[in-house]
Amino acid sequence: MGRVTVRRRVLRVREGHPSHRPDTLAAEEPMEIRVGGRPLTVTMRTPGDDFDLAAGFLVSEGVVRSAEDVAGIRYCAGATSDGGNTYNVVDVVLAPGVAAPDASLERNFYTTSSCGLCGKASLDAVRTTAAWSVAEDPLRVGPEVLSALPDRLRAAQKVFDRTGGLHAAGLFSAEGELLCLREDVGRHNAVDKVVGHALRSGLLPLRGTVLMVSGRASFELVQKAVMAGIPLLAAVSAPSSLAVDLAAESGLTLVGFLRGTSMNVYCGDDRLEAEPVAVG
Amino acid sequence: MGRVTVRRRVLRVREGHPSHRPDTLAAEEPMEIRVGGRPLTVTMRTPGDDFDLAAGFLVSEGVVRSAEDVAGIRYCAGATSDGGNTYNVVDVVLAPGVAAPDASLERNFYTTSSCGLCGKASLDAVRTTAAWSVAEDPLRVGPEVLSALPDRLRAAQKVFDRTGGLHAAGLFSAEGELLCLREDVGRHNAVDKVVGHALRSGLLPLRGTVLMVSGRASFELVQKAVMAGIPLLAAVSAPSSLAVDLAAESGLTLVGFLRGTSMNVYCGDDRLEAEPVAVG
Repeated sequence: MGRVTVRRRVLRVREGHPSHRPDTLAAEEPMEIRVGGRPLTVTMRTPGDDFDLAAGFLVSEGVVRSAEDVAGIRYCAGATSDGGNTYNVVDVVLAPGVAAPDASLERNFYTTSSCGLCGKASLDAVRTTAAWSVAEDPLRVGPEVLSALPDRLRAAQKVFDRTGGLHAAGLFSAEGELLCLREDVGRHNAVDKVVGHALRSGLLPLRGTVLMVSGRASFELVQKAVMAGIPLLAAVSAPSSLAVDLAAESGLTLVGFLRGTSMNVYCGDDRLEAEPVAVG
Repeated sequence: MGRVTVRRRVLRVREGHPSHRPDTLAAEEPMEIRVGGRPLTVTMRTPGDDFDLAAGFLVSEGVVRSAEDVAGIRYCAGATSDGGNTYNVVDVVLAPGVAAPDASLERNFYTTSSCGLCGKASLDAVRTTAAWSVAEDPLRVGPEVLSALPDRLRAAQKVFDRTGGLHAAGLFSAEGELLCLREDVGRHNAVDKVVGHALRSGLLPLRGTVLMVSGRASFELVQKAVMAGIPLLAAVSAPSSLAVDLAAESGLTLVGFLRGTSMNVYCGDDRLEAEPVAVG
């Protein structure tokens, strides 16, 4: 099994002064996800929580939606020519009756609409694939709860402070309690690991929860939140235009630039429950 | 043609005080890359420099290595069912004699080695695919030149200051002169756009140059630098373990946490030419 961090000797320069010293790096290794033995995708990820990653990826892509949809997950022995196990190939066996994904799933996800490949088609693909809606989720969150999340996420990050190289995704309750934290060199992977853990724990859809991510909010992160039934996504940095479009169409509350008591709410601001303080 | 930014109304909260105001977001749209009419991949990107993006992606994957390898690049009309053009589907026509990539190219890139899917196999794949070596590149750079790059990159970024949502990749000369800047919601895309521009300008391999990126240094960013013949990659944030492994094996100089006069040099520090200042 791979390690989450590795140590390497580096030339460190501080204010022009060089010194050689050991440094801690975030581990990165490829992982192939197979479904029923058939290769589906390869992602570069930080080893650890690999089964969560595989399960969460399949939730994001609309292949599974409950723990019962998954008959089993295992590392593939025989991944090397001499029958060894690299612990980098994970096979998901679907339950009887669950349709296997098309091998060219990624491409299909963006091109299911007759309007051609465009942002609109991407939104349509999520809407037609999602198993549930987040629009009616009655979640309400006080701004003070949101403001506490970045520090809480950072405090819980086991690896970030040592490497500076890992993205984090944290699932929180409406009261700001941390329910699940996952880290990865890839921010999409960190979210997939959180969602996969929830699936395998029988917790989907994740109604009434808040997902906080350490980076930016892209279309794909909003997609993952919607597919998992999470009604509020908060990011430390900026969202993209298509992330806001998808959040608005899906009824998801999207918060960006969440830093201390400052934030931007891009849509769904009715879920921020506290009476706003009157401006001077 | 898509826009690089879009305006949206947001609820802005500053120190607890809410106000509604317009905000500028980085545009994100899907783009499909086809080769000879056959779909190869879909990436979520910021519209603009799309032909550079397609060309650079094919350099990174080892499909093309010179301007002569590309017979033409065009937007696909007929991308929609009514024959319209979304400007989100780009077709690259290869020159006669240039082998078209396998449709499952991404997966193959990581699994060409008999040792199975692992970091070592990923390194092997780059080594066997790269058209040239960066190990012998005689580039030497003064630390003071590197220290000036982050500010220079930021100053040249047209969009970042307005949205906070775009990654930047800048190609610099050994003297720190900016040769090419590209921005994108995806950091891989920003680098592909730089490399594709260089390919189409007949500048590959990019010997004697420095690539600076605004985020972290992953395996794939080092891969892209190696495939373009760039001997030095500098990043504002941390590298991953596999990024350092690939840089070391390829003879690429990898600099991380480049901030002011501080930086970490993970390998290839012989390219930093100035005599180190003795530590007090």
